[in-house]
Amino acid sequence: MAETGISCGENSAVLDALKPVVRDEPESGIVNAANYVWKKGGNVIPMWVGEGSSPTPEFICRAAVESLARGETFYTWQRGIPELREALARYHARHYAKPFNAENFYVTGGGMQALQTAIQAIAGAGSEIVMPSPAWPNHAAPLRMLEVKPVEVPMNFSNGRWQLDLDQIFDAVNADTRAILVNSPSNPVGMVVGDDELIAIRDFCRKRGLWIIADEVYGRFYYPLTPGAGKVAPSFQNHCDAEEQIIYVNTFSKNWAMTGWRMGWVQAPEVIGQQIENLIQYNTSGVASFMQPAGIAALDQGEEFVESQVAHCAAGLDYLTSTLGQRDDISVQRPDGSFYYFFKVDGITDSVAAIKTWIDEINVGLAPGTAFGEGGEGWFRLCFACSHENLHEAADRLCQWLDHR
Amino acid sequence: MAETGISCGENSAVLDALKPVVRDEPESGIVNAANYVWKKGGNVIPMWVGEGSSPTPEFICRAAVESLARGETFYTWQRGIPELREALARYHARHYAKPFNAENFYVTGGGMQALQTAIQAIAGAGSEIVMPSPAWPNHAAPLRMLEVKPVEVPMNFSNGRWQLDLDQIFDAVNADTRAILVNSPSNPVGMVVGDDELIAIRDFCRKRGLWIIADEVYGRFYYPLTPGAGKVAPSFQNHCDAEEQIIYVNTFSKNWAMTGWRMGWVQAPEVIGQQIENLIQYNTSGVASFMQPAGIAALDQGEEFVESQVAHCAAGLDYLTSTLGQRDDISVQRPDGSFYYFFKVDGITDSVAAIKTWIDEINVGLAPGTAFGEGGEGWFRLCFACSHENLHEAADRLCQWLDHR
Repeated sequence: MAETGISCGENSAVLDALKPVVRDEPESGIVNAANYVWKKGGNVIPMWVGEGSSPTPEFICRAAVESLARGETFYTWQRGIPELREALARYHARHYAKPFNAENFYVTGGGMQALQTAIQAIAGAGSEIVMPSPAWPNHAAPLRMLEVKPVEVPMNFSNGRWQLDLDQIFDAVNADTRAILVNSPSNPVGMVVGDDELIAIRDFCRKRGLWIIADEVYGRFYYPLTPGAGKVAPSFQNHCDAEEQIIYVNTFSKNWAMTGWRMGWVQAPEVIGQQIENLIQYNTSGVASFMQPAGIAALDQGEEFVESQVAHCAAGLDYLTSTLGQRDDISVQRPDGSFYYFFKVDGITDSVAAIKTWIDEINVGLAPGTAFGEGGEGWFRLCFACSHENLHEAADRLCQWLDHR
Repeated sequence: MAETGISCGENSAVLDALKPVVRDEPESGIVNAANYVWKKGGNVIPMWVGEGSSPTPEFICRAAVESLARGETFYTWQRGIPELREALARYHARHYAKPFNAENFYVTGGGMQALQTAIQAIAGAGSEIVMPSPAWPNHAAPLRMLEVKPVEVPMNFSNGRWQLDLDQIFDAVNADTRAILVNSPSNPVGMVVGDDELIAIRDFCRKRGLWIIADEVYGRFYYPLTPGAGKVAPSFQNHCDAEEQIIYVNTFSKNWAMTGWRMGWVQAPEVIGQQIENLIQYNTSGVASFMQPAGIAALDQGEEFVESQVAHCAAGLDYLTSTLGQRDDISVQRPDGSFYYFFKVDGITDSVAAIKTWIDEINVGLAPGTAFGEGGEGWFRLCFACSHENLHEAADRLCQWLDHR
């Protein structure tokens, strides 16, 4: 058991009694970096995790406090309270300029439970889900732990851009494939899948009877340089029917600075509503009753806040583009979306070691590219949702370190 | 698709594209009763669900409100904040009179996520978990939806008592068995497994390398008639080492009237801590940061409240014993624990139909025995944690209905 750092002895029998795929799943590379910082202590600028520095806005917290004061502390609707599902439909109608039905929305314990729900709904042991890589580790790991095979199709980085090769994606589909997972804007690379490609994926999935799992969590964090681009990233919402084989996973975490709330949603066909409800019932039995009014406040009154968050991130990205992005020893595609800067440093062949060096020497904490799948060696993910003070300081320290290495 | 009430047509293709075990899992019989009431409307006394009528005590809510005001709205420790894990260790030390280690406690999104975590940790497709029946439907259903086989061993009701036949339980174990799930005090029958039987189960599991999943959620709701019995139900805590193959699933819901919070815990060997953390990370990414101080308040300051809850339930049970329990046409074992009264009515052969009749005719809502597995036909579960006003009214109406049927 040397890999896990656990001493042998009788306890290893307990470890060996776990389901093998669970026993053998390593710690997330992002969490590993975080733990290195927490053990070290000190004043490290935390840029490994996907959240900003602002706490949840007061008007959102207030809605939860008022709900608690009303005594809304009992079991509630497994699909989410009707008022929140209606608010989700209104929010989507506003941003995608078409009608949405509240019955297609199911409230979950964060985006992660939304993804877990989607996986459990469609994939069992021995089946496969295809996804481009590099990818957020939380896309593949839950699959492995459920004995589902994540089939990661590496994207190529060439001419300064990540290339999504649809033929490679489609070639990776076989009789065991249940879904293609599309994360756009992408965590970690910030790539946005265009409308033509979304349509091609939709048509392929329709023809082959596959599900689409659409992770468009960062759809609002969209900063294309193309003139005339919309304010929301291209989306399957514009190309798919509500009642076809597509499950969206989403979260309150990013848009409304609610990472610590663990509240998100699934959007899925109404015809599988009972099954989604069952999965919620048997995984968590729903989301805290008094948190759901806070979700309504976020959706109905949070637009100004979301826009300020996006503007904040866009300004942060501009700073990175004009500093790290100008260096000859750094390769990066300026992200069109998300709030991650995913860059490669010439001459670094051990991302994890470099991460620890930067934590130790310049108090800057990033996530190692290796956390995001094969091909991530030499790459790093920096979250630019943090305060500009922290962002500028971290970028400047990294540039200085690179100048003097 | 007639069973599910969904019309045929193109949407049935979407339903058929689900994982078959998920597609075919019926709605919980408890939820089904609840939905019947919600659709009907009106003033039905709700006794189908496992919760009381009191909202969460103010001192617990206040801790969450103060945490929100401190801006504790960010991602936090996946295993739970250290202070809450310490409080869980203190709470257990107080009630089981031995030391506990905070590292053995992992905070989850309710008891249901605790159970889901335990299942995912040890059992994959094709494996089996043995449990006595009647059982809470949420024990077997999540297994089925993960392609794990629940092996329900029917208990016999004879001479007015539920008989747990350990030989039958042990005979149900085969090479695919991963665990025995023991729920004591039992939902729905209220039976408490004695120390000798707990030891026998422990010894059998040790010999066969099996896990024990211990659901002792109702351990504080203990009202034995035996003189000198303790205040907490017999528990594996008194017979097992913290580091052996046992996983406890528990919740804040019942003791502290926090059903709507969705907060619970797993207690498991420290050696599998990383794996439990991974499962939490990839299922929900933890529990809301600002709810966790409320858990600490409950554990450290909630004893008086828990004792008042237990006394309230004991008085409710006395009322049932002196009313429904005295009838010749009712069979029941007075529960030694839990807060459920599980009874059979002579001459009723369709529990679900009877439930609906009572909802329609006397505005009393129970859960049908068939929700709790085979052998539940003719039985009913009544939760006596509700207000005494509701409880007396419901029991009286049931007696009157039975008198005049």
